Amino acid sequence: MTWASIDLNADLGEGFGRWRLTDDEELLSVVTSANVACGFHAGDAVTMRRVCDLAAERSVRIGAQVSYRDLAGFGRRSMDVPAAELTAEIAYQIGALEVFARAAGSRVSYVKPHGALYNRVVHDEEQAAAVVDGVLLAGGRLPLLGLPGSVLHTAAGKAGVPVVTEAFADRAYTADGRLAPRGEDGAVLTDPAVVVERSVGMARFGTVTARCGETVAVRARSLCLHGDTPGAVSLARRVRGELEAAGVRVEPFA
Amino acid sequence: MTWASIDLNADLGEGFGRWRLTDDEELLSVVTSANVACGFHAGDAVTMRRVCDLAAERSVRIGAQVSYRDLAGFGRRSMDVPAAELTAEIAYQIGALEVFARAAGSRVSYVKPHGALYNRVVHDEEQAAAVVDGVLLAGGRLPLLGLPGSVLHTAAGKAGVPVVTEAFADRAYTADGRLAPRGEDGAVLTDPAVVVERSVGMARFGTVTARCGETVAVRARSLCLHGDTPGAVSLARRVRGELEAAGVRVEPFA
Amino acid sequence: MTWASIDLNADLGEGFGRWRLTDDEELLSVVTSANVACGFHAGDAVTMRRVCDLAAERSVRIGAQVSYRDLAGFGRRSMDVPAAELTAEIAYQIGALEVFARAAGSRVSYVKPHGALYNRVVHDEEQAAAVVDGVLLAGGRLPLLGLPGSVLHTAAGKAGVPVVTEAFADRAYTADGRLAPRGEDGAVLTDPAVVVERSVGMARFGTVTARCGETVAVRARSLCLHGDTPGAVSLARRVRGELEAAGVRVEPFA
Amino acid sequence: MTWASIDLNADLGEGFGRWRLTDDEELLSVVTSANVACGFHAGDAVTMRRVCDLAAERSVRIGAQVSYRDLAGFGRRSMDVPAAELTAEIAYQIGALEVFARAAGSRVSYVKPHGALYNRVVHDEEQAAAVVDGVLLAGGRLPLLGLPGSVLHTAAGKAGVPVVTEAFADRAYTADGRLAPRGEDGAVLTDPAVVVERSVGMARFGTVTARCGETVAVRARSLCLHGDTPGAVSLARRVRGELEAAGVRVEPFA
Repeated sequence: MTWASIDLNADLGEGFGRWRLTDDEELLSVVTSANVACGFHAGDAVTMRRVCDLAAERSVRIGAQVSYRDLAGFGRRSMDVPAAELTAEIAYQIGALEVFARAAGSRVSYVKPHGALYNRVVHDEEQAAAVVDGVLLAGGRLPLLGLPGSVLHTAAGKAGVPVVTEAFADRAYTADGRLAPRGEDGAVLTDPAVVVERSVGMARFGTVTARCGETVAVRARSLCLHGDTPGAVSLARRVRGELEAAGVRVEPFA
Repeated sequence: MTWASIDLNADLGEGFGRWRLTDDEELLSVVTSANVACGFHAGDAVTMRRVCDLAAERSVRIGAQVSYRDLAGFGRRSMDVPAAELTAEIAYQIGALEVFARAAGSRVSYVKPHGALYNRVVHDEEQAAAVVDGVLLAGGRLPLLGLPGSVLHTAAGKAGVPVVTEAFADRAYTADGRLAPRGEDGAVLTDPAVVVERSVGMARFGTVTARCGETVAVRARSLCLHGDTPGAVSLARRVRGELEAAGVRVEPFA
Repeated sequence: MTWASIDLNADLGEGFGRWRLTDDEELLSVVTSANVACGFHAGDAVTMRRVCDLAAERSVRIGAQVSYRDLAGFGRRSMDVPAAELTAEIAYQIGALEVFARAAGSRVSYVKPHGALYNRVVHDEEQAAAVVDGVLLAGGRLPLLGLPGSVLHTAAGKAGVPVVTEAFADRAYTADGRLAPRGEDGAVLTDPAVVVERSVGMARFGTVTARCGETVAVRARSLCLHGDTPGAVSLARRVRGELEAAGVRVEPFA
Repeated sequence: MTWASIDLNADLGEGFGRWRLTDDEELLSVVTSANVACGFHAGDAVTMRRVCDLAAERSVRIGAQVSYRDLAGFGRRSMDVPAAELTAEIAYQIGALEVFARAAGSRVSYVKPHGALYNRVVHDEEQAAAVVDGVLLAGGRLPLLGLPGSVLHTAAGKAGVPVVTEAFADRAYTADGRLAPRGEDGAVLTDPAVVVERSVGMARFGTVTARCGETVAVRARSLCLHGDTPGAVSLARRVRGELEAAGVRVEPFA
């Protein structure tokens, strides 16, 4: 399967108050979709406003990067949040971001869970359903960005919420097309040339070389670029450049 | 001056997580406008949702009770928040509440600053302007509820943001029609009969007996009832009952 | 097995800022050990100081009620906190409380995990070890109060940290002497007469009637009284009164 | 007046969770006193532990950098915190840090208010007294590091709490020996050569050239180096090198 086009998404606005993490200005000149932190794991109101303004200016799509309420842990610690709380907190975050997107002349176009919540809704049906309910509560049936095969996408499908699949060019895949667990050796790829090559392969052919050496299908409408590592911006630029050189249209998902 | 009608407002949803403060269910059967805490001084997402649902059910108007970011101090400590931060934080809170109001089939109809911010924008021009900018940023030119004569109302007027004046039946007034400072002796009135009588006087004649004994004009479209004191609910009921008995229409401000 | 004496412990100081939960003054006239909230799930510095002052005045032992960092969830949501963080956070809380205990002329005498952390270290070896490491880091090998048979107590034993066992007179027990899960029918007992009778039985004979009707051993040096339910104070008084009437010495554990 | 020796202090551990701000490792090889953030404006438990361990290893003195509770504003927003709260919060922070200092084989040796609190206690008598009370509450009469002439130092003097004066080599001084307000042109000096020269002058002669061109006395037992600007570490190294080359002993204040 080949894609005529690919979306590039990255997490943005992940500072808080005095602290910065991501080079939002630079990344917004590369990506087509901005996952904007909404204040629960990172992101303050001033930053959210600024990122939305810049994204709108550059016609980058704005998404709500929703999280557990956990600034101290950057949303990276799995939490047993009761479903009703999680649902309300997801909606709260989407609503807060919507104000800045709208003020910038844009709108919130999708939702992407962050960190530990992202990983948990791959398999936790209760929390997955709670996230979908939060999206429904916020109104507008915003598409959920996430991993193909996750229970989040199953739950979304049942509820009539669209899903958008994504892939990671800097992560190892198993033979059955899943991400290798982050803790394992070689799970994260750091060689820029390899990341670029995999990006192009994923976008053009919908495939990637798994750890075992086999070519496996990776159905993804969007590639996730990481913005918080050294060299992130230049790698992101290179990925985009090579995609375009290979004839792939880099554009927001429909 | 007499008013054919009066609005009754109270602060609601001022718990946080495990903690409750206000008897939201009961108060929502009395007031016509609910100042819903938005998470910065009090109010979690579950509570915001519940209060919005109840308010919508009872046709009580929903307002955003915006505050400094200060859970530990319940928003009662004046803070030198830079204007750009305050503006973005006001908008953030309005947006978050909007989601729950909308999901309940209602909408956010007005904005009321809380606690130390309420008192500060009576005289602080920079913060008053920042609050008005926050309302504008959130869109819709929501009316600002506050004290007549405050610089907040002046700033709102200049920006084309409507203002709604309120009065306090349980607070002493000075000869020039201002609130006696809360620290002073007799500044807060606790005798229910007195509070009820003053409520009716304010609603029917737009006047109140000042500390000096003189009758002074108190222009108010809304009376603020307190919900976090013992006996608050029964006093609120009595105020409403006496107002209606005196022929005053208790209804949301236009 | 019978105990000549029993300790009574309760969670205290579980308000935050404007919010109160427990009637600290009253409970401190009943219990012999005060589990003082340290600011992570509840408890602000003013409250911690006040509870320590009152406890010292009444010769009530002061314990650090340590928790996950989770004010919004009152520490009741299990969290995957990495061991190094948990260890440092436990020590942080103990140190903060130590200041107020010392200023009151007392000291922190024991540590009790709160809420979700309490339940998790019954079975999670990594977090149990992290809690023990936090106690060691804080210095002084403070005893850990918890459930007999928990992995926390095993980990403490290995590290040379003393343990103190507790029991719950208002919770159902299974035939093997464990607490019935809180979600199950009849897991929480609310009849004051039953709670009082079970308290006396636990203290005098070290036994309790399990759900199945059998008498099972419950080894406990301390009984945990709940302070955040309606009628909590009068029930606590009654438990203490009946214990004393039955000849049980109510006194801090050694 | 000349000093045989000078202390160098810097703010350290000013990250929070995922966010880093200061290069703690490098700065700890330059300064003699580390103002460690205690969790209220910055600083999490893991970071506090790490900085204390490193400081103890390098025989750097550990101080508690106490702040308003304001992570979102990095403690830079003046707050009307009631005296009793401020006192208890100061003590809480000192106690929390003490645990890590002690575990590292060191102790908390002094206290330095941070940011907006630092500036406020220069002139606010109530808050200055509250800070001194917090130090007394924590026990041990820890010296307070701050500006000569501040009401904090007056209040400390009255209470028998020692004071240590500090100066800023990168800030302009007025003719009466005070800091030029940060907002004014030229208030912050950025030329490394100038900062180095002023450091040496302050340490050797206790003087600095004021904005007006006059030489004014700046009595300081400690120089404050900034750690959160680009080039901070290399400038700090250069200051220390030039001080030593000029025969000044760089050592902790007595």
